[in-house]
Amino acid sequence: MIIAVDAMGGDHAPGEIIKGVLQSLHAFDDISIHIFGDEEKMAPFLEEHPRLQVVHCSEVIEPDDEPVRAIRKKKDASMVRMAQAVKDGEAQACVSAGNTGALMSAGLFIVGRLEGIQRPALAPTLPTLDGKGFVLLDVGANSDSKPAHLVQFAVMGSVYAERVRGIEKPRVGLLNIGTEPGKGNDLTKHAFEELQNAPIHFIGNVESRDLLNGAADVVVTDGFTGNMVLKTIEGTASNVFSMLKEVFMSSFKTKLAAGLVKDDMKSLKQKMDYSEYGGAGLFGLNHPVIKAHGSSNANALFNAVRQARTMVQYRVCETIRETLGEEEES
Amino acid sequence: MIIAVDAMGGDHAPGEIIKGVLQSLHAFDDISIHIFGDEEKMAPFLEEHPRLQVVHCSEVIEPDDEPVRAIRKKKDASMVRMAQAVKDGEAQACVSAGNTGALMSAGLFIVGRLEGIQRPALAPTLPTLDGKGFVLLDVGANSDSKPAHLVQFAVMGSVYAERVRGIEKPRVGLLNIGTEPGKGNDLTKHAFEELQNAPIHFIGNVESRDLLNGAADVVVTDGFTGNMVLKTIEGTASNVFSMLKEVFMSSFKTKLAAGLVKDDMKSLKQKMDYSEYGGAGLFGLNHPVIKAHGSSNANALFNAVRQARTMVQYRVCETIRETLGEEEES
Repeated sequence: MIIAVDAMGGDHAPGEIIKGVLQSLHAFDDISIHIFGDEEKMAPFLEEHPRLQVVHCSEVIEPDDEPVRAIRKKKDASMVRMAQAVKDGEAQACVSAGNTGALMSAGLFIVGRLEGIQRPALAPTLPTLDGKGFVLLDVGANSDSKPAHLVQFAVMGSVYAERVRGIEKPRVGLLNIGTEPGKGNDLTKHAFEELQNAPIHFIGNVESRDLLNGAADVVVTDGFTGNMVLKTIEGTASNVFSMLKEVFMSSFKTKLAAGLVKDDMKSLKQKMDYSEYGGAGLFGLNHPVIKAHGSSNANALFNAVRQARTMVQYRVCETIRETLGEEEES
Repeated sequence: MIIAVDAMGGDHAPGEIIKGVLQSLHAFDDISIHIFGDEEKMAPFLEEHPRLQVVHCSEVIEPDDEPVRAIRKKKDASMVRMAQAVKDGEAQACVSAGNTGALMSAGLFIVGRLEGIQRPALAPTLPTLDGKGFVLLDVGANSDSKPAHLVQFAVMGSVYAERVRGIEKPRVGLLNIGTEPGKGNDLTKHAFEELQNAPIHFIGNVESRDLLNGAADVVVTDGFTGNMVLKTIEGTASNVFSMLKEVFMSSFKTKLAAGLVKDDMKSLKQKMDYSEYGGAGLFGLNHPVIKAHGSSNANALFNAVRQARTMVQYRVCETIRETLGEEEES
């Protein structure tokens, strides 16, 4: 299996990306990696490896490039070349920590949408207190969704949770502002009805305040709400941690306390660190496309490669197509 | 000025409600309070006070009562009688910690909607790290909103922030999934354009992760998204605090640390406690209606009464009507 990796995307590119690639090659002897980027910039970090192939690209998509335009104009960008390799059958999956919008465009316009899928969805796995995590989708591939899109998101998330996360009969919940049926806005009311007939284990509405308690294994929502909730969780957690830091630094006494809980706090922050769960999958495309977090270090990139490998191994894209195909026929 | 208070709503009714009422009467000698509830249940907590009038009511609206139905059927419920007192001009504002949906119905159907207002909005003031707080609306009076509703929310929030919170030229932001103009879903894209022409100090889009950093003084959004974000902030903060508690209780060493930071942690939790900012105002009605938090203690109830008093004093409802009236004419 060949996985294509964009060496130039993310805050710590290309150094941490290449380290993560080498870590992946050491961990999995059934994969080869084609890495795309500026040879000169990559050179200080590269090591020879029999299963690593380096492809020079003269352009880079920047974080503030307008996505669709960037994908169309920068034909020799590392991200575009990486996606093209998947499209051409040279690689079976791809991973980038670069511009999210551009990667979604590359996925849609180059890798291509799965037959029968109306809208792709961006699907990160977020941490829960019990360490099991849950898949949330869509978190921003779309800004307006219809009930039928949410049903497809549910099927895609469910197949992923079962195949890649090893959860038998994943519990799929609809993100809503109340748990009772009949709650919500026009979209969630209609989606609720349609989800009851979908080929998934639908458990009804779940509220955002219960997400971190593991209310469901897969949570579906429109891209606007999903993005909003994702950023609210991140923002709130990070603010509480900054306030804690202030508390700990405020006096001699509290600094002493900080020393005593240092290790435990570290493991707590790690629990909340979703790079451990890999990147966000872009579901609904012909092949796995993984968006690693912009701040990815080598370990996060390693987890994203592992995730891409598992998606290929367990035929996630094919199973999504088959499940939705059967659904259409029935 | 007379303020009507529902003694029977909330987790700690009627004891804490009555304590809060007495506290308010001691603090403000320009108010009288009419308190509505079951005389027998209130008796153990009541004290004689020249500016306190007790009105017996034989019914109570329960937390799980269906709102509209409850308001219509339970004519002698404390919440209904309280709203009726405002409608009849016996009181100038009202406060309840009871069933949110029922209070919204009582506000809409008994107190009545302000002329020219299309939709009322529920508007809590949430804490920020700098202690200044911000007004968020709507958090659930409506589940689907149109751009024109968001413009009215913006005007109502702005008048409130200026009059009651004493913020000169309040910064009004539109809650969105990106800061650049043109970001968002159909609703926010259209609302953005209309907000630019509204009689407010519109500062553009704000992201949910920046809310606690005080990105704006007033943040407008549809009721579905607002409710979602509110519950996500609450859920995330409460989960992080539970995990912290676990860390602190995990060993002798960490328990020692807990003792050292105990006082500082308390003040940190207080900073995040929005009962300090009063209840959530139900804006767009003929008179101030305040929803105190369901878990209100005496102090939270006191803050809600203070808020109602300030809204009457500074003519918030009248100013909203005037501002929107001028807007219509221009």
